[in-house]
Amino acid sequence: MSERKTIEERQQMSDLERLRHSTAHVMATAILRIWPDAQFAYGPPVENGFYYDFDLDHRITPDDFEKIEAEMRKVAKENQRFERVVISREEAKALAESGRLGGLSEREGNPSQFKLDLIDKIPEGEEISCFKNGDFLDLCAGPHMGSTSKCKHAKLMSVSSSFYMGDESKGQLQRVYGTAFPTKDELMSHLERLEEAKKRDHRKLGRELQLFHIDEAVGQGLILWKPKGALVRRQLQDFITAELDKQGYSQVFTPHIGKLDLYRTSGHYPYYQDSQYPAIPERDTLEKLADEGASCDQLINGLETGTFEGYLLKPMNCPHHIKIYASEHRSYRDLPVRLAEFGTVYRWEQSGELSGMTRVRGFTQDDAHLFCTPDQVAAEIQGCLGLVKTVLTSLGMEEYSVRLSLRDPDSDKYVGSPENWDKAEDALREAVQELGLEYTEELGEAAFYGPKIDFVVKDVIGRDWQLGTVQVDYNLPERFGLEYVGSDNATHRPVMIHRAPFGSLERFVGLLIEHFEGKFPTWLAPEQVRVLPISDKFLVEAEEVTAKLADAGVRVTLDRNSDKVGAKIRLARLDRVPYMLVLGAREVEEGTVSVRHRDKDDLGSQPLDDFIGTICEEIANRSL
Amino acid sequence: MSERKTIEERQQMSDLERLRHSTAHVMATAILRIWPDAQFAYGPPVENGFYYDFDLDHRITPDDFEKIEAEMRKVAKENQRFERVVISREEAKALAESGRLGGLSEREGNPSQFKLDLIDKIPEGEEISCFKNGDFLDLCAGPHMGSTSKCKHAKLMSVSSSFYMGDESKGQLQRVYGTAFPTKDELMSHLERLEEAKKRDHRKLGRELQLFHIDEAVGQGLILWKPKGALVRRQLQDFITAELDKQGYSQVFTPHIGKLDLYRTSGHYPYYQDSQYPAIPERDTLEKLADEGASCDQLINGLETGTFEGYLLKPMNCPHHIKIYASEHRSYRDLPVRLAEFGTVYRWEQSGELSGMTRVRGFTQDDAHLFCTPDQVAAEIQGCLGLVKTVLTSLGMEEYSVRLSLRDPDSDKYVGSPENWDKAEDALREAVQELGLEYTEELGEAAFYGPKIDFVVKDVIGRDWQLGTVQVDYNLPERFGLEYVGSDNATHRPVMIHRAPFGSLERFVGLLIEHFEGKFPTWLAPEQVRVLPISDKFLVEAEEVTAKLADAGVRVTLDRNSDKVGAKIRLARLDRVPYMLVLGAREVEEGTVSVRHRDKDDLGSQPLDDFIGTICEEIANRSL
Repeated sequence: MSERKTIEERQQMSDLERLRHSTAHVMATAILRIWPDAQFAYGPPVENGFYYDFDLDHRITPDDFEKIEAEMRKVAKENQRFERVVISREEAKALAESGRLGGLSEREGNPSQFKLDLIDKIPEGEEISCFKNGDFLDLCAGPHMGSTSKCKHAKLMSVSSSFYMGDESKGQLQRVYGTAFPTKDELMSHLERLEEAKKRDHRKLGRELQLFHIDEAVGQGLILWKPKGALVRRQLQDFITAELDKQGYSQVFTPHIGKLDLYRTSGHYPYYQDSQYPAIPERDTLEKLADEGASCDQLINGLETGTFEGYLLKPMNCPHHIKIYASEHRSYRDLPVRLAEFGTVYRWEQSGELSGMTRVRGFTQDDAHLFCTPDQVAAEIQGCLGLVKTVLTSLGMEEYSVRLSLRDPDSDKYVGSPENWDKAEDALREAVQELGLEYTEELGEAAFYGPKIDFVVKDVIGRDWQLGTVQVDYNLPERFGLEYVGSDNATHRPVMIHRAPFGSLERFVGLLIEHFEGKFPTWLAPEQVRVLPISDKFLVEAEEVTAKLADAGVRVTLDRNSDKVGAKIRLARLDRVPYMLVLGAREVEEGTVSVRHRDKDDLGSQPLDDFIGTICEEIANRSL
Repeated sequence: MSERKTIEERQQMSDLERLRHSTAHVMATAILRIWPDAQFAYGPPVENGFYYDFDLDHRITPDDFEKIEAEMRKVAKENQRFERVVISREEAKALAESGRLGGLSEREGNPSQFKLDLIDKIPEGEEISCFKNGDFLDLCAGPHMGSTSKCKHAKLMSVSSSFYMGDESKGQLQRVYGTAFPTKDELMSHLERLEEAKKRDHRKLGRELQLFHIDEAVGQGLILWKPKGALVRRQLQDFITAELDKQGYSQVFTPHIGKLDLYRTSGHYPYYQDSQYPAIPERDTLEKLADEGASCDQLINGLETGTFEGYLLKPMNCPHHIKIYASEHRSYRDLPVRLAEFGTVYRWEQSGELSGMTRVRGFTQDDAHLFCTPDQVAAEIQGCLGLVKTVLTSLGMEEYSVRLSLRDPDSDKYVGSPENWDKAEDALREAVQELGLEYTEELGEAAFYGPKIDFVVKDVIGRDWQLGTVQVDYNLPERFGLEYVGSDNATHRPVMIHRAPFGSLERFVGLLIEHFEGKFPTWLAPEQVRVLPISDKFLVEAEEVTAKLADAGVRVTLDRNSDKVGAKIRLARLDRVPYMLVLGAREVEEGTVSVRHRDKDDLGSQPLDDFIGTICEEIANRSL
């Protein structure tokens, strides 16, 4: 059975979802043949596949998958028709009582409580339908394929425990996930993609390549950038910084906390406090409250309402940048003011949602805030998009699209004049078109304070990554009373643009690790060259080679191990070092190095200076 | 009178302190002549001068200083002898009752309560002495000069309010600060130095030159680095980073918070919590306590004792770096591991102690932690000191000394074996001697966990700045159970070295601002060149010149104002821009620029390319 859906929703179920829904029933049929006492609860299609929850004394493990899959293939071969059966409420209840719905009623006195509950929820007068294939019968709204023969390209993926409808009081169930495709090729390529994604998992590679570390003792979701990961980040920061300098941005540095009042003004506190670390109360306040015997509740309320002051780990950089803008008298001649910062911000994510570098509690935004006149919005947005394009292209990520979130023209909930909104929306659209980007427009998806652009990048194995944003803001300049003196000598309100095109360096580097499978292009690679003497006899010469490369600014190490050179090469490959320079008797005699590339294998021997020239050019050009 | 001191302490009073103490009495004498109802309380010599606290209805302002100083000069000219008078306890009490001690008893029924209190504190049997000059008599232990004629080179500096012995309940007093020197020249040069220091005050210059901003709305003691200040910091960071790369350091990035347990292990919490921002409780804990009606006291105690978990804004970077060290298996071949970070840490300073960039609540350490074998300590310390020397020399600060803090050989409170201590202390001493540094040794001043070196730099006007530290640590490796596998295949404990040679970038840049009076050497200057067209007619050419300089990597701006060129030059000078390029008809015709230096004035006209060549070399060499 599947969750009850409206007719419309059912019609919207795609062919692929229908296939997977039917395959869930095929899996149930197979499991019942092996373990006839199973009692099935709920089995919908989901993203990338399906699952079915069921009650069963035998504890399913991945070792059982092969047996189940073999039985599923039999059920498919039997070409059982999926039949829709309409029954009365009384019949439905009787079937549920007997354990026949979602089961074979093998277990006496074991009514399916799941189904009884569900039947109770069906409004009086509404049709009650079941689907039947072979021996399997379950309360189900459909739709399904014609017969089980369509469901032969399936694969079970994992098993976990679950609760009926997420309700712990109903007892624990088992949940088996699977996937299915119309053709064998599609199934295989999906499984390969999964295998590929697993191989590229930045959490695994991050550990193996010593890029970053998360330590329970420091805190969940907090990234310690180890030396090699920090080197990648530094190259990226230096690259972005050079672009920012070219484009007239000013970098700033601001603290990682701010007074609660700052966030009351900005509106980040207390309204979004659930996604923030709890506030730090002022020391005096805390001590006074403790002395007076006040309760934690009084403390929390006092902080929320502003009776007490405190500090917040900054959830974003905007208020700090606003205070820098406001610290000087500004004339229209000074605008645009573009303040950039690699600013580390802190947000509270549920621990279950944390994942490596891509879902974290502390992250460093490649942030900037632009303060400009309404007339400058268009040019500034173009500049922002141009920067993203440059960086993504430099990293070989040519496939990306943007989502344009516009206002709902029928609503009046928006801050800022309609004329300015029109201008800003047009500016965003034109900038996107001008760069030839694929884009979608989402009416009504703009925030109340301004329209925005979100970036979505496709990585090398075709997965979408939601990156950062360019956001026009009429609200914060108002809330903070920002001003500039116009050419008319009157004071005006500037428009603000928030932009963090990559969102966060943590997430972006996570993406890069997976995109490159840890094989960073040479300019980004933490270790660019490893020198491998064939034996200890050539250590002195190897040291000279290493020193020459280091002098040329190449990140080079020397493998001093006494292992065979084959083992050294394997290790360097495992560490994804772009170039290995092998040094033996012939090379020493000739004054050459024998060059190997991690992908292109043996590049032959060449004079060291030639190699230095080539690699330095490769690094300077940021070749891919 | 001065605070009661032991005989030894009195003997230790320097000649200069004695002079200033006597001058305080001269000031009291003068004030009593003008306002006979004054009642003096306490008047000691202090660093750089003296003060006297007194009760007086007339509110003294700096406008009164001239009048008082004139009267002081008269008192000095009168050559009044300072006479020591020993009196009995009864006599002393009677004089105090009449208001005669520290006053003229002009105000009837106004006994000097200060003196009565003080007399009560003098132990029975101890001699009670007064000092008398002219009409002025006060309870005083001395010593004093022979006569008031020695006190003629004095100057009143400021007036503030104070409390008798810091006790609010005794009512408010007025406190006048002054200074005095044996000769007029010494007084004048002191005043000039003060004037110079005022001119160089980094708080004033930081505001005028738009280097940094402190905003009450963000929080006291928290620095917002504005674009120009951030540029200075970036040059410094890049410079230091290049040196770190050369010396085999690895940069890392770590979060700005850590779990309380991390700091319980390190010992930073709860023992040093008074110098930290209060802890951030875990969200769940806080909510649960609020629901249960728990008190703030329970919360605080629970955090302190470890019943509840929470986070701390990191007061130092060591625990994070330790966790990076511990995240990998380490062999003796991997050591030394040198982890560096421009790590921003947060500490709680009393608001009264905050000052600009030099006393703050958040600061960015040029931090590093070195993990090495005991045998490597000596070489690592030499490396650390060499780095400091390089950087300070590059900044033209040739005068610096170090303080070597060693253990007390008679105490057994120290962690680590005596052999290792000997080794480390010898290593520190040798490194200091090898670099030819001036140093002092302080026995017993080492921390219990290791010996250390502190740096003291003399700035251009002769003031000492306490900078950072190199600290050997046997303790944290023990507390965190750090290990490496030695060549003997057994596990050993590494030694840790903490080093933050400049302490903090905030403080260091504060020092640089004052040292250079805002006139940063060209390589550090936020704005290196300003192009000044003589009139709007030459704007196009001026833009070309500006673009060429920018292309060459020079930080250049163009003054587009329509002001006279004289005004433009004045403004550029005020902004401390090293070079001004004036562009008029002649220059445009000749293809030259007319170069002015902020200090050296007119350098004549030269071809633009020549100028670019010269300035680029100056920047690359980091010339002073």
